[in-house]
Formats: sequence, structure tokens, C-alpha cells
Amino acid sequence: MGKVILVTGGSRSGKSSWAQKTAESISPRRVFIATCPVIDDEMRERIRKHRQSRDEKNWHTIEEPLDIAGAIDSSHEFPAALVDCLTLWINNLMYRAEKENTAITETDVAAECRRVIDAAKRHPGAVLFVTNEVGMGIIPENAQARLYRDLAGRCNQVIAEACDRVVLMISGLPLEMSRLTAVSG
Amino acid sequence: MGKVILVTGGSRSGKSSWAQKTAESISPRRVFIATCPVIDDEMRERIRKHRQSRDEKNWHTIEEPLDIAGAIDSSHEFPAALVDCLTLWINNLMYRAEKENTAITETDVAAECRRVIDAAKRHPGAVLFVTNEVGMGIIPENAQARLYRDLAGRCNQVIAEACDRVVLMISGLPLEMSRLTAVSG
Amino acid sequence: MGKVILVTGGSRSGKSSWAQKTAESISPRRVFIATCPVIDDEMRERIRKHRQSRDEKNWHTIEEPLDIAGAIDSSHEFPAALVDCLTLWINNLMYRAEKENTAITETDVAAECRRVIDAAKRHPGAVLFVTNEVGMGIIPENAQARLYRDLAGRCNQVIAEACDRVVLMISGLPLEMSRLTAVSG
Repeated sequence: MGKVILVTGGSRSGKSSWAQKTAESISPRRVFIATCPVIDDEMRERIRKHRQSRDEKNWHTIEEPLDIAGAIDSSHEFPAALVDCLTLWINNLMYRAEKENTAITETDVAAECRRVIDAAKRHPGAVLFVTNEVGMGIIPENAQARLYRDLAGRCNQVIAEACDRVVLMISGLPLEMSRLTAVSG
Repeated sequence: MGKVILVTGGSRSGKSSWAQKTAESISPRRVFIATCPVIDDEMRERIRKHRQSRDEKNWHTIEEPLDIAGAIDSSHEFPAALVDCLTLWINNLMYRAEKENTAITETDVAAECRRVIDAAKRHPGAVLFVTNEVGMGIIPENAQARLYRDLAGRCNQVIAEACDRVVLMISGLPLEMSRLTAVSG
Repeated sequence: MGKVILVTGGSRSGKSSWAQKTAESISPRRVFIATCPVIDDEMRERIRKHRQSRDEKNWHTIEEPLDIAGAIDSSHEFPAALVDCLTLWINNLMYRAEKENTAITETDVAAECRRVIDAAKRHPGAVLFVTNEVGMGIIPENAQARLYRDLAGRCNQVIAEACDRVVLMISGLPLEMSRLTAVSG
């Protein structure tokens, strides 16, 4: 059974960099599961830069904005799989729901996350997830942004609960979230 | 003397859930002091869901948007009291000041917080506070939002300083804030 | 060689207060390098309050919005120098670039930060930096705000990597970021 790791933190906190270095220390054969769809030029440029820096280090890349569980299942040949990132995936799920004129709830997201976790547990190697902390600012005025915040937070909770290791990145430094703190008074 | 605990974190980080479980582990007789006023339908729905999940676990609920100290004083019969949450309370204090055409400053909030802390220390059982981290995003353009951020941050500092235990929730996991780190170079 | 310390956290998390107390514990002769330019009345009032509380404790103040490295170099006579804060400095660098009609990138900021770090390492005493966590909210809609978030995050990473000690403030309490966590699977 592989180790399942969640790397969380704010934007530009060094999450992706730390997750990549950790995956690289596990095996020379690793796969990057990119959830980022190309929406505009700013994003295209970000994706291009990131991919270039990975290509130089021999990463295999799968682009999969929606079916992360499937992408993990199809990458058993790699001893290390890195999914980057869950918050963009949540964004993609919301966008799909909007296009299909359906609602997406925290319950839906929790169910999707459990499918992803099941796939990660099935994977023979290590699976790393990158996500974002998005709930430590002011309450957004926009209702969609509030929904996004709720769904992303729910996702992080469901994934973190099932992980063997959760790391919070602050200013490029990793802080281990310990599971030793029991619920008690 | 009861233990006074502060649970802080971003939105949807599992603060309320952890605080409730902790209170439930202390005593079967616990009171929930809800600071949330019903303002709109979205909030009404959130309140209804939360209350329903508590009712199933035999919580007594007091709804008190402003006088938290009074609510804590009136609940000495319960071995565990949970105040959820302080940031909404700050919001209510700001709203009252606005209606009364008066200003509210960090000094006012600090004084209110000390009244709350005094009540918590007087309480024979455990008192838990839930609050939000709201200052880790971009500076809000709106002046009221900036004031809210300052007041909430001040509140968190004054309450945390007086607590026996402060827990930061990240992705549903509790991180103990230790008081061992002395101020030193 | 002096100790170099980074104090980070959200707004109103007690960063400046903790950094000042720490500097005061090092030496009675300390210098405050203020990066804050006077832009509007709200800021003027904030600056005035902060300066007043420092003056009472015999701080020497240097106001330097751009050349932090130079300000650190010119303060070798003080056993403790406190730079408050890096995120405002980033803001000032962005504003200068805008006025000069040039772009500022993460690479530029990283180079500037290395100059600052070099100055801090040259300083015979302790150098403390205060910065803000600004990336844990919702993605800003405004492109300039997104750039600011990226530049501030990059700055924090470059500075933190070179510091002897990094402290995250949460609700007024300091959390030591340990460097013990190796990058590993």
C-alpha cells in the first residue's frame, strides 16, 4: 500500500515545489496529474512554465480536469503520482455543474473525494495531493465564491482525514500536521 | 475552574465539528451559545442544518448575538459551554454600532473580550470558543471589511492570550498552539 | 553574525508586537526600519499610532520604503534591527514599477530579496523581518492583486529559506516553523 500525502497551504507558499521534490525523492518514475484546464492566457502561461520545469526533470504528465480517480487508477506503473491541485479540480466540478445546470453540494464533493481516496489507497505507490487553503480571508461577497470556499474546505477535510501525512506549507517551509492530538477536553 | 479553549481556523476547516466533539467528550450536558443572527435565507439554511445536527446529540441551544458574557453566566448548570462563533459576534457588535451611529474601535472590542473572558473564568465547567482566521487574504478594498478584519484579529488575540488551550484547525486537523515559545532573540 | 528571524502571519495576528518585544529583549538600542509610505489618512493614522508606541520604548526609526538593504547596512550600530514589513515593501516595489512603466516579476523580487538577505547576514546584530501571509483567501478577481499575492509569496519563500528562525503568528501566539522536516516520502 502506498503512502497518501496531502500538501496544503496558501498560494505561492511552495506547495507544488515541495510535493514535486518529495515525489522525486521517491522514484525517478513519477507522474504528474494536472487538474488545470487552459482557460485564459494568464493560466496558459502558468501551465507552460510549470510543465517546462517538470519536463526537465523527466516527469510524465496526465492532464485530467475531472476524473482524478481514473487518472490515479491508470498510473499504477509509476511509484509516485502527484495530483496538482484539488482546488482547481473543485473549480472544474463547479464549472461542469454550471454548464449542466445542476447544483453541486458539499455532499457531492465529499462523495467524489472518497472515490479519489479509494483510488489513492488502491495505488501500489505513493500518491501526493496538492491543495490550497482558501478560507482564511474575509467572507467573499460573491455567492459562487462562498460556495467554492465551502466545497474546497470540505474536500480538504475529507482528503486530509484519509491521508497518512498532511503537511501545511508556510513561506516555503513544511509544517507537519500531527494526528496525535486526540479530541478531548 | 473550568478549562477555557479557543478553536480557530479558516472557514470549513472543521472548527465547529472539533469543538462540538470536544465538548461532547466532556459531558452529556452541554450548551451551545449561538451568536448567529438570522439575516438572510442562506444563513437561515446554514443555522437550520447546524441546529439539526446538534439536536440529534442533545445539545441545549441559547441564541445570543450580543451579550455572550451574560449567556455564559447563565449556563453554569452545564459542565461544557460552547460559544460559536466570535467573528459573527464581532460582526453583530459592528452592526449594532452602525445602527446606533457610533464608532467601534479595537479598544472597545478588547474591553468586550475581557468581559467575556471573565465570564468564562467564572464558569465552573469548560468553556470553548470558536473563531475564524480572517486576515490571511488580500487587504480588502472595502473600509468596513478592513475594520472587521482588525476587530476580529484583536478579539482573537485578547481571547487567545487568556485561554488555557488554543487549537488551529487546518483541513479538519487540530494543531495545538503551544505557549512554550518564549519571547526571546 | 547576527540571527535573522522572519515573523509571518495574518493581519492583526500580533506579528509586529511579538517582533518588537523580541527585539527589545535583545538590546536597549534597536532600530525600526519602516517600509510604510504615507498614502492616505487611514495609513497616516496607523503609522502615527505605531510610532507613538515605539517612541515610548526608545526605538530609533528609519523610514525607507524601497532600499531595505541599504537601511540595514546603515544600522550596524544597533544590536537589533526590525524591518516592518516586507509585504508593504513589495507593494512599494510594484508602485515604483508602475510609475516607471516597467513590469516586475517574481524573478525580480527574488533578486531583491537576496540583496536584503545579504545585508541581514552582514549585519553584526540580529535582524528581524515582519511579513504577512496573504495567500489563504479566495483568488482575487483583480490582476494586480493576483500579482501582488504571487510576489509577496515569492518574497516570503526566499527570505524564510535564508532565516535562522521563522515564526508564524496565530491569534497573537507564535508557532515555530521547524526546519527539521526533511523533504522525503
